[in-house]
Amino acid sequence: EAVRLAVIPGDGIGPEVVAATVPVLQTALEADGHRLDVTSFDWGGERFLRQGAAMPADAADLVRKTDAVLFGAVGRPDVPEHELVWGLIIGLRQQLDLAVNLRPVRAFPGVPTKVRDTDGVDLVIVRENTEGEYVGAGGVAHAGSGHDLGIEIAVHSRRVIERAAHQAFALAGRRSGHLCLVTKSNAMRYGYPLWDRVVREVGEHYPAVRLETVLVDAMAARMIQAPRSLDVLLAGNLFGDILSDLAAVLAGGLGMAPSANVHPGADVPGIYEPVHGSAPDIAGKGVANPVACMLSGALLLDDLGHTSAARRVRDAVAGTLRDARHHTADLGGKATTADVTSAVLYMMESQ
Amino acid sequence: EAVRLAVIPGDGIGPEVVAATVPVLQTALEADGHRLDVTSFDWGGERFLRQGAAMPADAADLVRKTDAVLFGAVGRPDVPEHELVWGLIIGLRQQLDLAVNLRPVRAFPGVPTKVRDTDGVDLVIVRENTEGEYVGAGGVAHAGSGHDLGIEIAVHSRRVIERAAHQAFALAGRRSGHLCLVTKSNAMRYGYPLWDRVVREVGEHYPAVRLETVLVDAMAARMIQAPRSLDVLLAGNLFGDILSDLAAVLAGGLGMAPSANVHPGADVPGIYEPVHGSAPDIAGKGVANPVACMLSGALLLDDLGHTSAARRVRDAVAGTLRDARHHTADLGGKATTADVTSAVLYMMESQ
Ligand SMILES: CC(C)[C@H](C(=O)O)[C@@H](O)C(=O)O
Ligand SMILES: CC(C)[C@H](C(=O)O)[C@@H](O)C(=O)O
Repeated sequence: EAVRLAVIPGDGIGPEVVAATVPVLQTALEADGHRLDVTSFDWGGERFLRQGAAMPADAADLVRKTDAVLFGAVGRPDVPEHELVWGLIIGLRQQLDLAVNLRPVRAFPGVPTKVRDTDGVDLVIVRENTEGEYVGAGGVAHAGSGHDLGIEIAVHSRRVIERAAHQAFALAGRRSGHLCLVTKSNAMRYGYPLWDRVVREVGEHYPAVRLETVLVDAMAARMIQAPRSLDVLLAGNLFGDILSDLAAVLAGGLGMAPSANVHPGADVPGIYEPVHGSAPDIAGKGVANPVACMLSGALLLDDLGHTSAARRVRDAVAGTLRDARHHTADLGGKATTADVTSAVLYMMESQ
Repeated sequence: EAVRLAVIPGDGIGPEVVAATVPVLQTALEADGHRLDVTSFDWGGERFLRQGAAMPADAADLVRKTDAVLFGAVGRPDVPEHELVWGLIIGLRQQLDLAVNLRPVRAFPGVPTKVRDTDGVDLVIVRENTEGEYVGAGGVAHAGSGHDLGIEIAVHSRRVIERAAHQAFALAGRRSGHLCLVTKSNAMRYGYPLWDRVVREVGEHYPAVRLETVLVDAMAARMIQAPRSLDVLLAGNLFGDILSDLAAVLAGGLGMAPSANVHPGADVPGIYEPVHGSAPDIAGKGVANPVACMLSGALLLDDLGHTSAARRVRDAVAGTLRDARHHTADLGGKATTADVTSAVLYMMESQ
């Protein structure tokens, strides 16, 4: 069987971590007698500078013809950020209606962390991925008059909350049976109270899952103070964004955090991407940590039903990380991207 | 000279930490020959249950007659949260137009933290305190139809951004000369880009201060990964709320984080409050950590010009915390609120 993979390397370290990941996925699939057919799209900052748009108008259709997308990162100093963000990654998430962004964080043995006592940390953030603070609605009144008034509108709809909630409850049911909903209903009076209500209602279909509702400020502190009290978190688009960068710290930082933009049940390919950005400061130096991208690839394999290949990737990454000589600079080590990649490939071959 | 202090003990552990703090402020002032005149207001959850409102309609006027307010906490399980939040603390912040909420975080020697290597952490979050996501604007369309649409509107005005920015730049100028503005302009297109623009403009008046702009998700990770790279942070109301709870972790948790709701230059009393909430689970047991409230009191003394009294409080708190026998349960110790209070008073007397 052939897996039709689209890759969007993007900007900065994106191409480096994607190039490190593709052979890993290939090797993992071939061990099971499968093939990887890769189509690469040159979307991102360079294309914007050349053609005035980060991706073509029919990008969503092109992507729909594949089984899954591996995405690197976008962002470069000489392109306005929103051209790449709205013009590419937020654009694709919303056009493909990728309902949730799953962001698992797992502490791997051997990886140093700034937070004490992270052994066994293993949690997943289920981030609503299509609306909330990310609808792009609003405007600036009195612009330029000296009395500018920026208005930012967030939209939270029952349908979208419900589908994210079902994902989160189902996931919590398969894991520990504990779900934390993160809102800020004491200060924000309309959107988050609706979340609280709808999620509670959805929860009635999952009597085996215990639902806890936590304010986002308290959750930020708890994420660091008591991460093992957490298993599955459900959050809106903005809070999910903030909390997932924070949770990555528990695993050693952003170089370790994978994600999956998916719509389970819908006939649409997922987009799998490391949570880190394009990191222009270290781009082109061959020192980026490819682990977040490789683990995103493992999520991709899992979702396509290639669970043994996914396990192979994760085991090889875990084995590689056990040895500090394979740690990149973000983890306090000296390994290059290529060093890590060779180590992971070697681990897979000797499994 | 007499300091006219209003105290609003509030709910939960509020009365306990306020009761622990008042004698400390008293002792600190008396050493300089000053007096503390305390007026106590019974506002909060109990008043709401009795009278249907957490505070009287003329609360802001009553407060305006005093020099400063020491506020404990609000929140109790049997009262709808917004009645106490909008009906009291957010209400007062907005009615008194307390422009900024200053939230300093300092790691005290001897206090254990979940984050490694926090020695010397000393930062201040300047949180805009009157608008942004906290204006209470929005609504729910199609309510109850099964198609509910929650709409949440944030408002960011140039005037309000400017005054917060001036505070932050001036503070950064008196400290390290480094200011980090926290926004999310890659995803939110109107409010935060206005923040970026206005703060940059205000910065032209402070050429000695280096301005850095950081996305809120990246800042959450950096706060834990590299807290000593931070000095003064400027953030809107919501991000300031989230980041200040998170920053408290660097000092040992929410029991350690003071705050000052102030409008420097305006003739209005500040409200000084611990960042922690009412903590109903431990209320009434005499085990709450009074340090956040005591340090809020020190900010209060500072702002009234009683800087030597403020220093006395802070030094006594620092001295007390050096000894683990004076740590409350949140810091992993066994001390009671009364134990800590006696130790602080004793330290002040022997200074
Ligand atoms: C690039 C940016 C818009 C994006 C987001 O906020 O969603 C990123 O931070 C992420 O978490 O994937
Ligand atoms: C009680 C709540 C509304 C408040 C806030 O969000 O401002 C609290 O969390 C704080 O930080 O002072």
